[in-house]
Amino acid sequence: MAPDTNTIPGYTIFREGDYDSASAAAFIPDRVPHPLDIPDQLSIIEIPAAAQLIREWASPKLLKFNCITLREPTKSEYVAYKEGHASRPDRRAFAIVIEQQGSGQISEVVVNLTKSKVERWKEVKDVMPTLTLEDLDIMERISRKDSRVIEACRGLGITDMSKVFVDGWAIGVDERWGFERRLQQGLAYYRNHELDNQYAHPLDFTVIADTEREEVLSVDIRYVNGERTAIPLTEHHYLPNFIGDKYKHDTLKPIDITQPQGVSFQVRGNELTWAGYKMHIGFNYREGIVISDVRMHDPYEDRDRALFNRISVVEMVVPYGCPETPHHKKHAFDLGEYGSGYMTNSLKLGCDCKGAIHYMDGVLCTGKGEAAVIKNAICIHEEDNGLLYKHTDYRDGTVVSARDRKLIISQIITAANYEYGFYHTFTLDGTYKLEVKLTGMLNTYCMHPSEQAASSPYGTEVAPAIIAQNHQHIFSLRVDPEIDGHNNTVLQSDAVVSKDPLGSSENYYGNGFYCEKTPLRTALEGATNYNHETSRSWDIINPNRLNKVSKKPVAFKIVNNACPALLAKPGSVVWKRAAFARKSLWVLPYKDYELYPAGDYVCQSTGDENHPDNLTIQDWANRNESIENADIVCYIQFGLTHFPRTEDFPIMPVEPVSVMLRASNFFQRNPALWVPPSALCVDSISRNAFPACCSGGESKNLPKL
Amino acid sequence: MAPDTNTIPGYTIFREGDYDSASAAAFIPDRVPHPLDIPDQLSIIEIPAAAQLIREWASPKLLKFNCITLREPTKSEYVAYKEGHASRPDRRAFAIVIEQQGSGQISEVVVNLTKSKVERWKEVKDVMPTLTLEDLDIMERISRKDSRVIEACRGLGITDMSKVFVDGWAIGVDERWGFERRLQQGLAYYRNHELDNQYAHPLDFTVIADTEREEVLSVDIRYVNGERTAIPLTEHHYLPNFIGDKYKHDTLKPIDITQPQGVSFQVRGNELTWAGYKMHIGFNYREGIVISDVRMHDPYEDRDRALFNRISVVEMVVPYGCPETPHHKKHAFDLGEYGSGYMTNSLKLGCDCKGAIHYMDGVLCTGKGEAAVIKNAICIHEEDNGLLYKHTDYRDGTVVSARDRKLIISQIITAANYEYGFYHTFTLDGTYKLEVKLTGMLNTYCMHPSEQAASSPYGTEVAPAIIAQNHQHIFSLRVDPEIDGHNNTVLQSDAVVSKDPLGSSENYYGNGFYCEKTPLRTALEGATNYNHETSRSWDIINPNRLNKVSKKPVAFKIVNNACPALLAKPGSVVWKRAAFARKSLWVLPYKDYELYPAGDYVCQSTGDENHPDNLTIQDWANRNESIENADIVCYIQFGLTHFPRTEDFPIMPVEPVSVMLRASNFFQRNPALWVPPSALCVDSISRNAFPACCSGGESKNLPKL
Repeated sequence: MAPDTNTIPGYTIFREGDYDSASAAAFIPDRVPHPLDIPDQLSIIEIPAAAQLIREWASPKLLKFNCITLREPTKSEYVAYKEGHASRPDRRAFAIVIEQQGSGQISEVVVNLTKSKVERWKEVKDVMPTLTLEDLDIMERISRKDSRVIEACRGLGITDMSKVFVDGWAIGVDERWGFERRLQQGLAYYRNHELDNQYAHPLDFTVIADTEREEVLSVDIRYVNGERTAIPLTEHHYLPNFIGDKYKHDTLKPIDITQPQGVSFQVRGNELTWAGYKMHIGFNYREGIVISDVRMHDPYEDRDRALFNRISVVEMVVPYGCPETPHHKKHAFDLGEYGSGYMTNSLKLGCDCKGAIHYMDGVLCTGKGEAAVIKNAICIHEEDNGLLYKHTDYRDGTVVSARDRKLIISQIITAANYEYGFYHTFTLDGTYKLEVKLTGMLNTYCMHPSEQAASSPYGTEVAPAIIAQNHQHIFSLRVDPEIDGHNNTVLQSDAVVSKDPLGSSENYYGNGFYCEKTPLRTALEGATNYNHETSRSWDIINPNRLNKVSKKPVAFKIVNNACPALLAKPGSVVWKRAAFARKSLWVLPYKDYELYPAGDYVCQSTGDENHPDNLTIQDWANRNESIENADIVCYIQFGLTHFPRTEDFPIMPVEPVSVMLRASNFFQRNPALWVPPSALCVDSISRNAFPACCSGGESKNLPKL
Repeated sequence: MAPDTNTIPGYTIFREGDYDSASAAAFIPDRVPHPLDIPDQLSIIEIPAAAQLIREWASPKLLKFNCITLREPTKSEYVAYKEGHASRPDRRAFAIVIEQQGSGQISEVVVNLTKSKVERWKEVKDVMPTLTLEDLDIMERISRKDSRVIEACRGLGITDMSKVFVDGWAIGVDERWGFERRLQQGLAYYRNHELDNQYAHPLDFTVIADTEREEVLSVDIRYVNGERTAIPLTEHHYLPNFIGDKYKHDTLKPIDITQPQGVSFQVRGNELTWAGYKMHIGFNYREGIVISDVRMHDPYEDRDRALFNRISVVEMVVPYGCPETPHHKKHAFDLGEYGSGYMTNSLKLGCDCKGAIHYMDGVLCTGKGEAAVIKNAICIHEEDNGLLYKHTDYRDGTVVSARDRKLIISQIITAANYEYGFYHTFTLDGTYKLEVKLTGMLNTYCMHPSEQAASSPYGTEVAPAIIAQNHQHIFSLRVDPEIDGHNNTVLQSDAVVSKDPLGSSENYYGNGFYCEKTPLRTALEGATNYNHETSRSWDIINPNRLNKVSKKPVAFKIVNNACPALLAKPGSVVWKRAAFARKSLWVLPYKDYELYPAGDYVCQSTGDENHPDNLTIQDWANRNESIENADIVCYIQFGLTHFPRTEDFPIMPVEPVSVMLRASNFFQRNPALWVPPSALCVDSISRNAFPACCSGGESKNLPKL
């Protein structure tokens, strides 16, 4: 059951010579990329081509490829091309490479694929790149053979090391080593048999390893009153092999969802059109889904209007709240430390999504520079979304209603124990919503008999002698807005009581309230928090375009009231490393290749400001540049604080959390009036025009359109 | 088009002699009520029977029936009966009657239907009951004939009074009259033709009328600089008669949702069972849907466990934020002033809900004491709810996932211009969620040429010369919890940073945080607000029952972060009248017949404390009784602050808002493990047991259960 280090579950790997095979052919684009396919993925041809150019450049040094991904053009290149002022930018790859069997030097490489040459090679210092699935697999493999780990297991009565499982995690903090080692920590579990649920059997030690040297550095055993903590041995299962006869097969009757005429969207290359929307779907190892160049047709101005240049989830942090060693090291930055793309599930029809689905594959690389494909990495489908609008005239029962529809672009990632589903959702009224569904397995730990979870504030005893600790999930959604044009401003919108006193002629009855709009002018002003008392939201406006009707600037409103405060103390390790999570919103001027708010290199990061090769959002904000009527980028933080419940064990029911951006005085009127009603029931005027649909009062039976 | 005063759109009215007819038969229960059908509706037989007993008692006085509804048994009677300690309580009706052609005296009547006698007759003073649809219809009828209204219209150039439409509203405040008159205000609009959208043509005057005397008291014209405001005459349509050729019929392909084996719930009388849940569905003129006696099967303790004794939406307020006369009078309490039941839509398959639907009718009364049935008032249906859980073992691709399911019990009401959909939703993980969808028409007003909405903070110009004013919607969800027993306590749960300083041995790395739980001990402590900084939630616990695993009290958690602050000044009219809206949560001891937080009589209420016949939640709280380990009731406020957008005109896309109660250490583990997986993909052990489902890595193709 130990993984074959030449395979990665869920990945289809193409090695040299494979590219002409029939199976490879399915993954090779049979087209010239669509003009707007610039922020696309690299193909299975381009990845090894880039690797080969890099290897040749570095020879005789040996390299491990940490990533090979599309180098998106600069925005000026992209815009010039899109607007017809320049020719198509060259196709480029970006790679991070680690020198093997030597210095371990990390370098960033830009390869021009159009010109077949390495354009840039930059050595970076005091940083560590993402841990890939291949890197993480090392932990278990070396732990099982390590004498100190074997000894630690023996102390718990374990002699069969094939029953010991070690989840590799990035290390939150460990002062014993620095950037001279590429560290990971291993969280140890036991399985009594192949399909046993290891999270029911957490072990009382962690393993610290050097990823590059494949060397165990330390086995840190937690002693309680000088004693080891026994393995919780009771089995707690969630797999059907064990639950089998407890399933109730007839309780839930099937719900069949079909689209007999097919889906309502069209896909050309990576360009998606649906119900007036146009957008482009990309994917990479780190952010997973990238949605770019989002436009929407304005039925009143009869033109496509730009909404967002680029949308992606760029970071997240999961700080655990138990201060006791070794738990203080657990604060996973799943995107920056592991990569949302690398961890993406290959999806299956009817299991992850229902109905008519269009899938897109994800193209990644292996450490050897091979192309690796995650088949069905991205799910695109529609769902009915209930009422879009309804109104009844109470006088006579005249009624009209229409149904809303969702377009959902989703991926699910597995981050060791946890899973996250990311659902990018568009609806007909001009709303984009990102919903994240959290599920999978709680991170668990064993309890010593002297410990009482009921009296410990830092966790919940979710099964006898098993504690699951308090933690937070804080996500960072990066939105590069393009609200009807490149230059935008963010207004902070606070619902406030009128300043005129009760009894004054301006506010005699005291009911006056309004929306106070404060422009965020500089990057430091743009680092703001949600305020519940004023139901704060933010309008991304285009100050150069007024809505013709309301005479207010056209805008999209950010609605985000699910943004918990970061509960680590100021100055603490996670507070420093996760600067982005200190604020609900950051607004910054757009800069090419400034994407990742916890730094380009999150593994082993310290969060210290002004790191030459690893700036964070705090550094960007400290420049305090203008964000007014400028090309800006918004980082929107949202998430939840999770105090585990027994109901979350042994597998967590989905916990959803979401954030929304919504047209607000962007269109001249309801942009979805083109949607045919699902029902109406009107008067004598149209009575002859339509077949019967409904009845009531004075109204006449009328049409189903 | 003027309503026939003998009919009410959407109502089927049964008059004496009708009860033996075939059409009536469909609405007469063909059964002895189920034992748990005590909080049911009155039948179409019982309503006129109650009316007849009341009329006989009052004779020779003439009465108008404001309501005739079920008088639910006291909780002690109900519990004693349910637990087998007492016989079935007598069936009773509760009525509010208004003496006609005389004093206008309001009385409350309790009728024992089992014993056929009036048991209680109580005269109430300085209160006004709900305005029924019949009452509201009076406004338009008398306005059109009133010389002052005709004169006011002539001043705008209107001579055809059939084109003038007047929406009757409860009056927020009007010092000119008191309880000697049953007031309403009329908001005036113009229609150029029968199906014209009147909200595009608001007129500059309001009408004040006496409902009982059917008399116009005043026509209040708003003069701006001494001038009238012209009617905005541009038509803005949403009905298909006008949009017809702008519909895009082929853009959205149909989504068919079917349940070929039928629904998964069973209905016996008003008792509903579904997926381990049991509950009872009631309905009345004021609250609309009432869900009672909610239980859930515990698969681990193998017993039904009580969750909630009774759930209903008991009040809401819509304060408008424009301080200028006459808008200060607009703060609709839609439930208390009009009744959620009275305003309920008769629903239609495929229009309001999709899939396999079970409908229930609503039984109400008319002013004459007849039974009135709203056919299909309540929709009960299931929806797929996406992932219930998923986990993949990253080592070998072993994966299991299941899909969640919703049970939704819903109604839609029309409150003049606005509609509200109420969706009471249960999911398999032990979650109850109330989602409200707001749609319909904005309340609009005309703008004088001297006015600029862009410079007015109190509204948005949603079409030329039409302003829609800022407003809030604050709902009150009443939950009578019964978390595993009658006596419960509410703990306020705040996520707080550890008090131990960074660097101390207790919190060296500064990552410690926990959930601070503060019991709410008395009713005044129980009046609390949401706190965003601590992601505040509340646990309704049963302090007498510990979860066997976590050793924490069994609980349901209230998750409510959509609870805007009431934006009226302290001491203002709406602040006084809507005391309930000042707090996110009130917890009170249960008292029989204490239901309505803004008072039993909301029309013309002042909010003054200690009104002998009209106590509010503030009065209840002021008693400051114990709410600890007691039979308690929670009033949960939630809603939104709406700054209108041009996108909300001429008909509003749905704006959703919701609140949730969720099992939290209530079950010993995930209560939905009985749900068969939609997909799994496991190892060699079960490989022979199941047909192929999926593939990947080391895993074998496995079963679709």
